[in-house]
Amino acid sequence: MANLFLGIDLGGTLIKFALLDDTLTPIGHLELDTPVQKGADEVIDTMICGARELIHQQGVALSNLSGIGVASPGPIDFETGTVIAMPNIPGFNNVPLRNRIADALGVETILENDANAAAMGEALCGAGKNADILIMLTLGTGVGSGIIINGKILRGCHSAGAETGHMIVEPNGEPCPCGQRGCLERYSSAASVAQYARRLIEKEGRQSTLSEILRKNGNIDAAQINQAQIDGDELAKEVWDRAMYFLAIGCINLARLFDPEVIILGGGMAKAGENLINPLRRHFNKLHWILTEPKTSLVLSALGSKAGVIGAAGVAWKTFRK
Amino acid sequence: MANLFLGIDLGGTLIKFALLDDTLTPIGHLELDTPVQKGADEVIDTMICGARELIHQQGVALSNLSGIGVASPGPIDFETGTVIAMPNIPGFNNVPLRNRIADALGVETILENDANAAAMGEALCGAGKNADILIMLTLGTGVGSGIIINGKILRGCHSAGAETGHMIVEPNGEPCPCGQRGCLERYSSAASVAQYARRLIEKEGRQSTLSEILRKNGNIDAAQINQAQIDGDELAKEVWDRAMYFLAIGCINLARLFDPEVIILGGGMAKAGENLINPLRRHFNKLHWILTEPKTSLVLSALGSKAGVIGAAGVAWKTFRK
Repeated sequence: MANLFLGIDLGGTLIKFALLDDTLTPIGHLELDTPVQKGADEVIDTMICGARELIHQQGVALSNLSGIGVASPGPIDFETGTVIAMPNIPGFNNVPLRNRIADALGVETILENDANAAAMGEALCGAGKNADILIMLTLGTGVGSGIIINGKILRGCHSAGAETGHMIVEPNGEPCPCGQRGCLERYSSAASVAQYARRLIEKEGRQSTLSEILRKNGNIDAAQINQAQIDGDELAKEVWDRAMYFLAIGCINLARLFDPEVIILGGGMAKAGENLINPLRRHFNKLHWILTEPKTSLVLSALGSKAGVIGAAGVAWKTFRK
Repeated sequence: MANLFLGIDLGGTLIKFALLDDTLTPIGHLELDTPVQKGADEVIDTMICGARELIHQQGVALSNLSGIGVASPGPIDFETGTVIAMPNIPGFNNVPLRNRIADALGVETILENDANAAAMGEALCGAGKNADILIMLTLGTGVGSGIIINGKILRGCHSAGAETGHMIVEPNGEPCPCGQRGCLERYSSAASVAQYARRLIEKEGRQSTLSEILRKNGNIDAAQINQAQIDGDELAKEVWDRAMYFLAIGCINLARLFDPEVIILGGGMAKAGENLINPLRRHFNKLHWILTEPKTSLVLSALGSKAGVIGAAGVAWKTFRK
């Protein structure tokens, strides 16, 4: 078996590996814990060892690989394949990750931003197949996004495009660590939903079944808020609905500017499934102009937590396939 | 002289014509009044006669033309070259404008939306030369826009993209005839600035030197508001600044999503020159994130009211040049 493509998705908790054949069919997966505390070198060693392990497991050889795609968080210098900074892993500054992997494994390698890789995964193998324009939003700690136009990732002129999480959706709104106010990710990320619920409980003394969880665990997360709203908690409903409203404003703006075939929702909050997509569609349809019917579809990620690693392999496939 | 390109820009007041050689150098211009009241057929006849007249004036022949580009307002069916609707000219519904012009003049013709044509004009011959990504905003009755990525006009999947004027910049804000609330063009178009000043004077009884103009003429326009703020009128300053603030929010969002080299401001309000671009840049820089210095430039249109007609010829040049 030759002409295979390996994807490696470097995350703050797990490193994921996927092996795809040249029809983009996954033929093997592997996940390893990210040795965050041990620093950059150990993390890179784990990436290299995991790659060898998956290859070995599948009974193939490194020489069967036509290319490797690596998905990484943080700003990337695409020319040199360097990770400029990674807040979650100590020592991961200005690391020439592409060449480190390529040199260790002797296989041509390409480095891609994780949000872009996830979008490419959905474009090639998931909810965005056959879409000329698609946008993927990953709702996690922040709101990551990848925008693909006619098969190409939109990077912008200074590699700073597709920052949908920092679109201003509320003038003079919530302060964002980026220095702006009212950024989408201050309203609709998993982290922001939890922070807002906590603020209403702790600062404004609002009543909620979430207070008990907060007292016991010291924090609450988006999944607990989703569960609480299912159980009828009014505060949880209000908090969740606010996130969906602002997310819909963001989607309206994306529809007006890009007129995409589809906007795909992924990341931790997308695990809420129908509880995410239904209220989002409701707000979107209500906010939408009356000049035409809504034509952009809002859908859940088809690949889930594998979008990034499949997309990393997909980026390698697009770059190195013969 | 052969391999020439003719641009025709159909506007509600004027029909503009420009003849360009194959290096995109303009070699002749013509403007005729648009016979709006006489309806679509007369308007098209004027377009055809004007084309012949300009060709004749320049001492060349229709056979020297390699292509014609027509810029038109209103939604367009690009496949068939049909103008679907044009609110300002009676009878201009579902008119196969491309074929009418091509058949009458015997020259290959392409039809383009006027905002896209203006952006292409600036991209090829104006303030966006050498920019991989540029966005042009035309501030007039509405806020028109054209987005060009690597030389290609962004249309979207259903020909409904690049509607920057209908980006929501204020949730639950000013109602827009499109059915949304808080659209950019409700704040930052020439028409909206005038409407807002009028509302403050008539409905809220605010004092302003503009009251006198309003009483005399029955209305006020953006140019008068700009003049009043230059003369120190406090209400005019407030109205103008609000328009610049929301326009800057729109530009921040465009910078986050597209990371363009340049955002170009044109249309009636851009005649305010420094009074437009300086406060816009000030708000933009203040709103901008702190992660990187602002890299997207905000500049005035270089081609002014000729951007559309130059761009129409430019679209023909891109399509039909040999």
